[in-house]
Amino acid sequence: MPGKAMVFSFSQLEEFHNYIPGFNVRTDLALEAHEVVSVHEEIPGVQVQKDGDEEVTVNRVSITTEQGSAKMGKAMGNYITLEVPGLRKKNTALQDKVIKIFYKEIQKMLNLNGEQTVMVIGLGNWNVTPDALGPRVVKELFVTRHILQLKPEILGEGYRSVCAISPGVLGITGIETSEVIRGISEHVKPDLIIVIDALAAQRMSRLHTTIQISDTGIVPGSGVGNHRMGINKQTMGIPVYAIGVPTVVDAVTIAGDSMDKLAEKLKKDSPQGNAFAGIVQKMDFGEKRDIIREVLQPFAGDLMVTPKEIDTLIEDISMVIAASLDAAFHSKIAAEEENRPVVH
Amino acid sequence: MPGKAMVFSFSQLEEFHNYIPGFNVRTDLALEAHEVVSVHEEIPGVQVQKDGDEEVTVNRVSITTEQGSAKMGKAMGNYITLEVPGLRKKNTALQDKVIKIFYKEIQKMLNLNGEQTVMVIGLGNWNVTPDALGPRVVKELFVTRHILQLKPEILGEGYRSVCAISPGVLGITGIETSEVIRGISEHVKPDLIIVIDALAAQRMSRLHTTIQISDTGIVPGSGVGNHRMGINKQTMGIPVYAIGVPTVVDAVTIAGDSMDKLAEKLKKDSPQGNAFAGIVQKMDFGEKRDIIREVLQPFAGDLMVTPKEIDTLIEDISMVIAASLDAAFHSKIAAEEENRPVVH
Amino acid sequence: MPGKAMVFSFSQLEEFHNYIPGFNVRTDLALEAHEVVSVHEEIPGVQVQKDGDEEVTVNRVSITTEQGSAKMGKAMGNYITLEVPGLRKKNTALQDKVIKIFYKEIQKMLNLNGEQTVMVIGLGNWNVTPDALGPRVVKELFVTRHILQLKPEILGEGYRSVCAISPGVLGITGIETSEVIRGISEHVKPDLIIVIDALAAQRMSRLHTTIQISDTGIVPGSGVGNHRMGINKQTMGIPVYAIGVPTVVDAVTIAGDSMDKLAEKLKKDSPQGNAFAGIVQKMDFGEKRDIIREVLQPFAGDLMVTPKEIDTLIEDISMVIAASLDAAFHSKIAAEEENRPVVH
Amino acid sequence: MPGKAMVFSFSQLEEFHNYIPGFNVRTDLALEAHEVVSVHEEIPGVQVQKDGDEEVTVNRVSITTEQGSAKMGKAMGNYITLEVPGLRKKNTALQDKVIKIFYKEIQKMLNLNGEQTVMVIGLGNWNVTPDALGPRVVKELFVTRHILQLKPEILGEGYRSVCAISPGVLGITGIETSEVIRGISEHVKPDLIIVIDALAAQRMSRLHTTIQISDTGIVPGSGVGNHRMGINKQTMGIPVYAIGVPTVVDAVTIAGDSMDKLAEKLKKDSPQGNAFAGIVQKMDFGEKRDIIREVLQPFAGDLMVTPKEIDTLIEDISMVIAASLDAAFHSKIAAEEENRPVVH
Repeated sequence: MPGKAMVFSFSQLEEFHNYIPGFNVRTDLALEAHEVVSVHEEIPGVQVQKDGDEEVTVNRVSITTEQGSAKMGKAMGNYITLEVPGLRKKNTALQDKVIKIFYKEIQKMLNLNGEQTVMVIGLGNWNVTPDALGPRVVKELFVTRHILQLKPEILGEGYRSVCAISPGVLGITGIETSEVIRGISEHVKPDLIIVIDALAAQRMSRLHTTIQISDTGIVPGSGVGNHRMGINKQTMGIPVYAIGVPTVVDAVTIAGDSMDKLAEKLKKDSPQGNAFAGIVQKMDFGEKRDIIREVLQPFAGDLMVTPKEIDTLIEDISMVIAASLDAAFHSKIAAEEENRPVVH
Repeated sequence: MPGKAMVFSFSQLEEFHNYIPGFNVRTDLALEAHEVVSVHEEIPGVQVQKDGDEEVTVNRVSITTEQGSAKMGKAMGNYITLEVPGLRKKNTALQDKVIKIFYKEIQKMLNLNGEQTVMVIGLGNWNVTPDALGPRVVKELFVTRHILQLKPEILGEGYRSVCAISPGVLGITGIETSEVIRGISEHVKPDLIIVIDALAAQRMSRLHTTIQISDTGIVPGSGVGNHRMGINKQTMGIPVYAIGVPTVVDAVTIAGDSMDKLAEKLKKDSPQGNAFAGIVQKMDFGEKRDIIREVLQPFAGDLMVTPKEIDTLIEDISMVIAASLDAAFHSKIAAEEENRPVVH
Repeated sequence: MPGKAMVFSFSQLEEFHNYIPGFNVRTDLALEAHEVVSVHEEIPGVQVQKDGDEEVTVNRVSITTEQGSAKMGKAMGNYITLEVPGLRKKNTALQDKVIKIFYKEIQKMLNLNGEQTVMVIGLGNWNVTPDALGPRVVKELFVTRHILQLKPEILGEGYRSVCAISPGVLGITGIETSEVIRGISEHVKPDLIIVIDALAAQRMSRLHTTIQISDTGIVPGSGVGNHRMGINKQTMGIPVYAIGVPTVVDAVTIAGDSMDKLAEKLKKDSPQGNAFAGIVQKMDFGEKRDIIREVLQPFAGDLMVTPKEIDTLIEDISMVIAASLDAAFHSKIAAEEENRPVVH
Repeated sequence: MPGKAMVFSFSQLEEFHNYIPGFNVRTDLALEAHEVVSVHEEIPGVQVQKDGDEEVTVNRVSITTEQGSAKMGKAMGNYITLEVPGLRKKNTALQDKVIKIFYKEIQKMLNLNGEQTVMVIGLGNWNVTPDALGPRVVKELFVTRHILQLKPEILGEGYRSVCAISPGVLGITGIETSEVIRGISEHVKPDLIIVIDALAAQRMSRLHTTIQISDTGIVPGSGVGNHRMGINKQTMGIPVYAIGVPTVVDAVTIAGDSMDKLAEKLKKDSPQGNAFAGIVQKMDFGEKRDIIREVLQPFAGDLMVTPKEIDTLIEDISMVIAASLDAAFHSKIAAEEENRPVVH
């Protein structure tokens, strides 16, 4: 077969990802950004609230000032996070419970009435398992817009107009994802957009157990790096919500954590430990980053840490999100969901 | 897992496909439409020309009048078809030969200069093997637009700006494909669009052995049925070219052919044959169609006939098209292609 | 990239498929074979029984003599078929109902006690959508053998030892599927084998709406053609059951049906019709086959007719079968299934 | 849809992986094991030799004593490694060059004559991109055994009998991979087996740029962890060769490296650094491992670090390996390969 000279992945075109300012920690979860930063300082303009039970914790983080936003490295707005450690094991009853909780959270945040058209965007690369969350949710989703336009009588009452698309990634299309979405949005004219994306977490324990929904859309520097232009109200002209699940930890986070834990350990254990820990803590942010670069070269950013059983984890959580969206969008499906008793 | 009431495939929303007017034959190849119709009558305003060698036949069909267009069931414009029976068996040397011929045909038809930006659209459903031609070609294609915009120095000379997207199908997205393309096109502002699509042929022998390129784009009634609004110069405002390979024969064609062949056979073999053949030939077009409907129910159209080894056939021909496009677009790759001697 | 001289698909190595003896009809359903043959003659040694309701029909066909087996073109044994026309539309409540009926039919036929180890084999080609039923069911199945061997305490009570494998197809592996299964079986030493395979039906209406289970295994001439050596008790030395769903109609069936329907139509409609129909009916079996060959050339057999929305149909029915098997195998899962009330 | 109580991934059943004895470094490359260990001590019974040019380095490591084997954590035998940094960028000319070098190395190591039958095994999980190397190579491979058995005249001279299978992974099948292979091997009776597998490297720079072939097969403790019983001459009774490409770095390696690099840095930079580095170096192997566990919890081993563009990297290197095997096996294809001049 013939030759295409060379292919460059987009990562070669990118600078280091955006991490929590001043930390070698990358997280797309507002909850984690708050955990990391609040250990070191007060963060004015950020409210955190927590409820739920022992299976499902619901965290609500609101960032209400520019200052809070800057410290957290996250856009102003509301972030709701469900933490469900049990989801790492397949458990149908627990999945059903999460769907019942999550679809109502979606409804509340979106403030839907009966007439709005929703456009769902599945970000990420179908061919890279941990990045495939968005396309998989879109594949599972119940899409109605064309039926309601062409033969609404087939559906009957209780269904909203929903469309969905997976625009691919810049490295494959050569087009900024935000350009693609804006172009389609201008023709489809939905009332609101929901983007689904695989996220990076700081902590391993959050992989595939945590779902975040926010009213901020996706903004540069808070996201997975490949989507450089914002997908939010400012760029799209209509409300944009984001739903994501952490499927990877950035390798930079692992490397940084390892150094920090080593310093902690020494501090506790050795007589000179305090001094050494002090040295590590005082090490320039840039010096630490140089060490990390050395460990991870020739890849700067864009190294994902992910569990081996990623395929089934992604599949399960995608079904939970698609089912939650279906129930949040369509009153008919919500009613069925409510009639379905939790099985023990 | 919870329930989505019912999913309707788009085929339920569609009427019978558009076939050659007055024939129970569906073909997306202008060459075949001409073969079928010209047996029965003269088609003014259609020119057909043939060259090539015993391995690769190049057919050129031009439809220059509305009348010709109406009789053929094909848009006015130019259609070039490569017939390469040997492609059904994997044969690297032959593939290389086809690429060398085809990329030059593409260049001539597109009349490219060095500066134009090309947007390639892969139509069809990635998850249905015989419909996956478009998405597969897009996946293989060398995409450069983002590199030329962000770091052109990586590429050097000899590369054109190319972007590519697979917009999915209406049944999965809820959005007309033409809306998606128009939306993206208005943002990307390419100079021309090339759509790649799996086609239906009349004859089995054409599956995976025939490549058609035309300057007509895709227009309602000439295509694969699922793309109802035109993707052509009129709707997009810029030149639109279409490249396709037949991967299926419509089941309606098989059923119709079987009846016709039976009539032929009887005509030859039995004393009353002429009378019977006459009866079959005089049978109302609608009557024949009723029989076909009965055979194919509960599916009206949208039944594909496809060989079992479809997976490797699609993979091979997708590589040939992607390589031809790469060479047609980028002078650097064309030069490499020319330096590669044909292996015997 | 370099060249592999030529690749031959297996279909080139095969003779015409085995059809119902004396008919241009290929079906893997005993129910259909009986329908076709019993129109023309009595079939001694074949019992047919039907129950169920308006949503789910359960057919039981028993072939108890060699003569019946020869006439039907099916191995002696028991075949149970669920017909559920509603399955062509996604309907969660109906799927749940089918699972509840089907898992009990499986249990009865397999006559399982608590200790047996089951090996499930997913036949077919993952990369060809209509042939992917077997591999997809295997992917969905709950596999326990390794857990019960290594850490049974994780599972607790109520789980049977189940393993599962998709051995690929001869054209890709170069190894007869039956050799692969026998080899593995001799090491795993299961008590019984269940093979899952995509089937060919005669009637379009049966695609994706019908599930067959039999205690015959798969025998040459009754199957999908690519599995030439039997996978049954004789070759494996242990009981072998087969579960299948029709996903395709053979193109030969379509062509044959069209000719027959044409003859029927003429018989009714025209004065000379009777004579014509008589001629067609008296046409040699071989003569009809010659016409069919002409229509389908250069492909002899191995042309599948399949609906365009094949991807979602396969996905849905695979989940139903996997869930039925899970409940049939594991008393814990059966109990959960029973606690799950049918939703309306 | 109904519920399967819980699914356990195999990683929950496994203990920590086998790393280089005494190091928090996991590598499947003999070359790297030697690099790591030889810094600290002499390794008797291990010979290392290096040739090649600036594009392709060929390393030959021979482990000839039990002692050398124990220190390296690798089986006794011969390991040949091609290092080709340029492969990380798509480069057809370089790929062609690597194929020409690698197929001859394969031929030499396998010492093939014209009559031997080869069975190729693609280890790993098709659904997890970085683990899919083996199944992808098998998919690309030219398989001939069935043709040579059934219709050898189609192929003509110059082809060897080759079969290939991807047996899946324990977590999906419930069957040890080695059981599957042994079972099939006893029926197919090949003369030798080649297993293809995705490997773990120590250094990021080796991902997708390095190919290792060895005559050791795969033995517990030297491999990817999920294949616990050996696939080698002892277990299979015939020669077993292994070909692998590193596609991941173990997260444990990253964490360990980060701590070591921090110690190094401090040693150089700070007055007390020497003392600090000494403490870290004297830290118990177990203490370091405890820190790593803390960073990576709740996942112990089985966390892969992999670049985001994994999909195209895997695809390219799989084609190189498949093409090299084709040429190594079949004299007809080797001749074609040699006639293909390198393009510059």
